[in-house]
Amino acid sequence: VLVSFRGGDVGRWRVERIATVTGAPLPPAARIAMIEGVAPDLETEEGAWTLRGAISEDRYVTARERTMLSTLQPPLGRSTATAAALIPITKSAEWWSLPQDARRAIFEERSHHIARSLAYLPRIARRLHHGRDLGEQFDFLTWFEFAPADASAFDELVGMLRATEEWRYVEREVEIRMLLAEFN
Amino acid sequence: VLVSFRGGDVGRWRVERIATVTGAPLPPAARIAMIEGVAPDLETEEGAWTLRGAISEDRYVTARERTMLSTLQPPLGRSTATAAALIPITKSAEWWSLPQDARRAIFEERSHHIARSLAYLPRIARRLHHGRDLGEQFDFLTWFEFAPADASAFDELVGMLRATEEWRYVEREVEIRMLLAEFN
Repeated sequence: VLVSFRGGDVGRWRVERIATVTGAPLPPAARIAMIEGVAPDLETEEGAWTLRGAISEDRYVTARERTMLSTLQPPLGRSTATAAALIPITKSAEWWSLPQDARRAIFEERSHHIARSLAYLPRIARRLHHGRDLGEQFDFLTWFEFAPADASAFDELVGMLRATEEWRYVEREVEIRMLLAEFN
Repeated sequence: VLVSFRGGDVGRWRVERIATVTGAPLPPAARIAMIEGVAPDLETEEGAWTLRGAISEDRYVTARERTMLSTLQPPLGRSTATAAALIPITKSAEWWSLPQDARRAIFEERSHHIARSLAYLPRIARRLHHGRDLGEQFDFLTWFEFAPADASAFDELVGMLRATEEWRYVEREVEIRMLLAEFN
């Protein structure tokens, strides 16, 4: 399933801030619209931009980890989750040249990406979208939803991930923070 | 890198036969053209079709296996490799719902996909293209090149793979066999 994230003047999510963490920035936008499935070929307003990714199979999660995740992971769209974040990242050519077992070892055995994220469930809902095979500018688009009261827990989670060995391979990262427009 | 395989009346590869192994067939074609990079938006001739896939990171190959493969694997484009095959396959929803470690175990520990393929190197050159995240009708397009004298070794290789546990998850498969037009 293809998902498009469109930055511009329309969309349910009102942008609070767009922070450039590493590498080139994204243009500003007042709103973000998430469009699931093939996006309609809308008249594009001046300055709008679209990031795309596919919901795809997990590349690193084991059966045991999936069992833990599926127990704790909340769905998107909870009525209390009126805050959101979109974090587009691109990893380096060095990362992509590593074999599967080396990538897995950095991701989990050394960076504990899954194990350390579990502590933030079920507060933070998450969905990953893969853009690399689509020729997109970002390899991954991760979408998060949480209650505004859990924003500091979200900050802690992304801060923890950015300090890992895995993140040494991130050569571009932008963080878009939003609030649901109808409630804020 | 996006690669397009176009079936129609033009292209360097003359089709010998298109065999439907499992599931729905592909329309007939006299020639196959392989186009690397973004395909030009050509006037499409009547009845032509295009399959697309991305050259992407390996999903199952370990560091140890990659070392063996890189020693033995020949490049595409050898002057002696005037025979080719394109095998588009789609795996079932059950396959894609398996966690990474379960897919890896079926692929290599139980089906020996890599270990048993090594015996056919360097005779048979191979390149894998991923279509699933692109929303293509086939999950994988595997392109093979070999000398016509090695065609029976190629038949043995694909026959061996089709007898594995991994192949129980293949719900669509087509085999296109070709010869380089300028030499045949």
